[in-house]
Amino acid sequence: MKGLDCFFRPRSVAVVGASRDRGKIGYCVLREMRKRYKGGLYPVNPHADRIMGLKCYPSVRDIKELDLAVITLPRETVPVVLRECVDKGVEAVVIITSGYSETGKEGRRREEELKNIIRGSRTRIIGVNCLGIYDAYSGVDTLFLPESKFRRPARGGISFITQSGAFGSTILDWMSSEGLGISKFVSYGNQTDVKENELLEYLDRDRRTRVIVAYIEGVSDGRRFMEVAGRVVKNTPLVVFKAGKTDMGSRAASSHTGSLAGSYRIYEAAFRQAGVLEAQSVEGMFDLAKVLEFLRPPRGDRIAVVTNGGGFGVIISDSVIRNGLRLARFSRESEGRLRSVLPAYANIHNPLDLIGDADKVRYEKALDILAGDPNVDGIIVIPLLQTFSLEPEVIDVIAGIKRRAKKPIIACATGGRYIRRHLARLDRKGVPAYTSPERAVRAMRALVRYGRVRGS
Amino acid sequence: MKGLDCFFRPRSVAVVGASRDRGKIGYCVLREMRKRYKGGLYPVNPHADRIMGLKCYPSVRDIKELDLAVITLPRETVPVVLRECVDKGVEAVVIITSGYSETGKEGRRREEELKNIIRGSRTRIIGVNCLGIYDAYSGVDTLFLPESKFRRPARGGISFITQSGAFGSTILDWMSSEGLGISKFVSYGNQTDVKENELLEYLDRDRRTRVIVAYIEGVSDGRRFMEVAGRVVKNTPLVVFKAGKTDMGSRAASSHTGSLAGSYRIYEAAFRQAGVLEAQSVEGMFDLAKVLEFLRPPRGDRIAVVTNGGGFGVIISDSVIRNGLRLARFSRESEGRLRSVLPAYANIHNPLDLIGDADKVRYEKALDILAGDPNVDGIIVIPLLQTFSLEPEVIDVIAGIKRRAKKPIIACATGGRYIRRHLARLDRKGVPAYTSPERAVRAMRALVRYGRVRGS
Repeated sequence: MKGLDCFFRPRSVAVVGASRDRGKIGYCVLREMRKRYKGGLYPVNPHADRIMGLKCYPSVRDIKELDLAVITLPRETVPVVLRECVDKGVEAVVIITSGYSETGKEGRRREEELKNIIRGSRTRIIGVNCLGIYDAYSGVDTLFLPESKFRRPARGGISFITQSGAFGSTILDWMSSEGLGISKFVSYGNQTDVKENELLEYLDRDRRTRVIVAYIEGVSDGRRFMEVAGRVVKNTPLVVFKAGKTDMGSRAASSHTGSLAGSYRIYEAAFRQAGVLEAQSVEGMFDLAKVLEFLRPPRGDRIAVVTNGGGFGVIISDSVIRNGLRLARFSRESEGRLRSVLPAYANIHNPLDLIGDADKVRYEKALDILAGDPNVDGIIVIPLLQTFSLEPEVIDVIAGIKRRAKKPIIACATGGRYIRRHLARLDRKGVPAYTSPERAVRAMRALVRYGRVRGS
Repeated sequence: MKGLDCFFRPRSVAVVGASRDRGKIGYCVLREMRKRYKGGLYPVNPHADRIMGLKCYPSVRDIKELDLAVITLPRETVPVVLRECVDKGVEAVVIITSGYSETGKEGRRREEELKNIIRGSRTRIIGVNCLGIYDAYSGVDTLFLPESKFRRPARGGISFITQSGAFGSTILDWMSSEGLGISKFVSYGNQTDVKENELLEYLDRDRRTRVIVAYIEGVSDGRRFMEVAGRVVKNTPLVVFKAGKTDMGSRAASSHTGSLAGSYRIYEAAFRQAGVLEAQSVEGMFDLAKVLEFLRPPRGDRIAVVTNGGGFGVIISDSVIRNGLRLARFSRESEGRLRSVLPAYANIHNPLDLIGDADKVRYEKALDILAGDPNVDGIIVIPLLQTFSLEPEVIDVIAGIKRRAKKPIIACATGGRYIRRHLARLDRKGVPAYTSPERAVRAMRALVRYGRVRGS
């Protein structure tokens, strides 16, 4: 198979260490694979005939054709099984087992041993010390997290690679509740063999992946990473969250995934130069991913703000300026048209306050004018749905304008259950929606920046 | 009545402009007041006999005893009614009506007229151009927002004053869904009479108020505000969100509430000097309010981080350092004790990684040791509840330690529905819990800063 396809679209998968014991990783992996994966699925366990109704094999050697082996065994037995995979010509091996270079010198030696086993062969490893892969399309799922505690996100256009498995899994879980969809998730752990660079290149070519998000502590080869990233971003936006920014954080990282976090200032500058978008918070990663999945970048940085809540106009204006964007100056023509459709007591300037008694009709007229204004590159709209006069159908109005407009529209609304329900509707209609002004503006900033990356 | 009690604990309330028409503000205010307010409630409307089953009065003059009048009338009739209130000796008047100094010169003249009417009398005004008051304890509720779209938060210890009504109301709605409780909410609009300073002093003396949050665009008198704030914070923590930080934002503010936002740099320095805690985002306001409501400040800034997800340890360490706090160095004794209760492969340092297979017992032992460590001032705990081995009862373990420990404990957990349910349980047990590492650390920083304010 081509590239890393054997990991993500294997025709057959063996779970080595499959178990009937609910407390075992091998139980959980087999159970999840069975749910969604449609290819040949083979539990490997010398002490069982059948598990979950599937025929069990004593060893990978006994399976006729095998693309992917998932190893969930204790450390001591990993080399033996890996060697069997190499002998058999298995192309893809995910090793979940931990206790390697992240634990010190002795662990590093053990990890070297695994490298030696695959050297010169066609066998590739993702791991060690990882959660492995979740592919929402093919159903490959090596995450050993009980579904009662952890929900897989729906299918979508975001792919997420992460050095920290536990961190990554909590984020997947969070994505599910935020309504964000995933293509491929890879927890690559110690990158014993397959490195983040190769994953980036693979995902860039994956037609399901519209945006890549990466959580990294340290990279395997800085220069190479930036080279690859610089190429990838021409085609696929890349959002990075870098952990280990401080000395203390770096030290923690080294005992976590055995990686050298390096100087953050160097990373920061290199990311910028390569056109990588850096998120500064955990939510930020996916706030950016969402906007980059849904919208094309604007032509420039002149932002119009439209709201029926004056306070939000003030807050967003501050945030637009402090984030290095500009508040658009409406064209003469737009000003005239706005004056004719808004009440006499409305102030016609940016941020545009449609006043507390605005309804969906007023929103539609105003947004339509700004969507056609050549001085406006992008629009942030903040409908205060709590007010008396604003009908929930304003959501459809915004979505309609978004479909017609040749510029990005981002929405923001703060509030409780009623509001969240309507925000989710906006997301589903392709208008990225955020619960706070700051998050909406940072999303717009990322989009503007990415426009520059693509344009340059 | 004393101070502003007539606004918040009136024995009787008149809704002037009460209406049967569901589209009218006077309808909504009366309906909400009827739900929770237990004192005398009088609709005023010369064209009706009864509204919602309540006897209607043609004018406030016809009501025997009256503490608070809520005016929801059109601008033209406001002066007449206000004069009647003054003549009658009504102490408190909330004027919701807008179209005053926020609209320019003519509006300023109209607002001066109202000031002249109350001059020398005992009548005080909250407003104009506001939503007014919500008191979760007395049931006073002048917010004219339909309950289907907008939920009032439960009773609690946070009081919130805001210059922007619409903004404030969305925040109240958001508080309801975050499980935050409120004491008093005041949307004071143009501060025609009662100013933010007086509200701060009143809330400081209110025994239900444990923390005050203020959204301000500009203050009526900067020097006086800082004087008052400096006194208040000795007793009650004060969190401020300042809108109108940039020139563009200030300009927007002036057409919104007619306020002069002034130079943000000056505000920023003055807040710091006065011991006011400034929030930099909308969520931030209540992230800080929550921690200040629940916990006492630590003695110092040496923070211990405990998790079963290494990645979060790295992220929190970065965030602790970048927020100007320190990572605690565990005492020799703690190190020894931790070594004896944790598995051999655990690294004993801060951030303390309890490893992916941690259970609640391991959490309890580790937290108990750190709670007693004299080198640790505060603890941030990040339980990855999604993992196989960690039972949900770790929530009770954390809450138990929090009750016994003489230092603050803050929790953080990222994830979907399962996690949010357990975070809410932590909140209810008095352990402030956050969905992201950055928010948890900023909460701890605010607590440390407030400790310095109180200590100085």
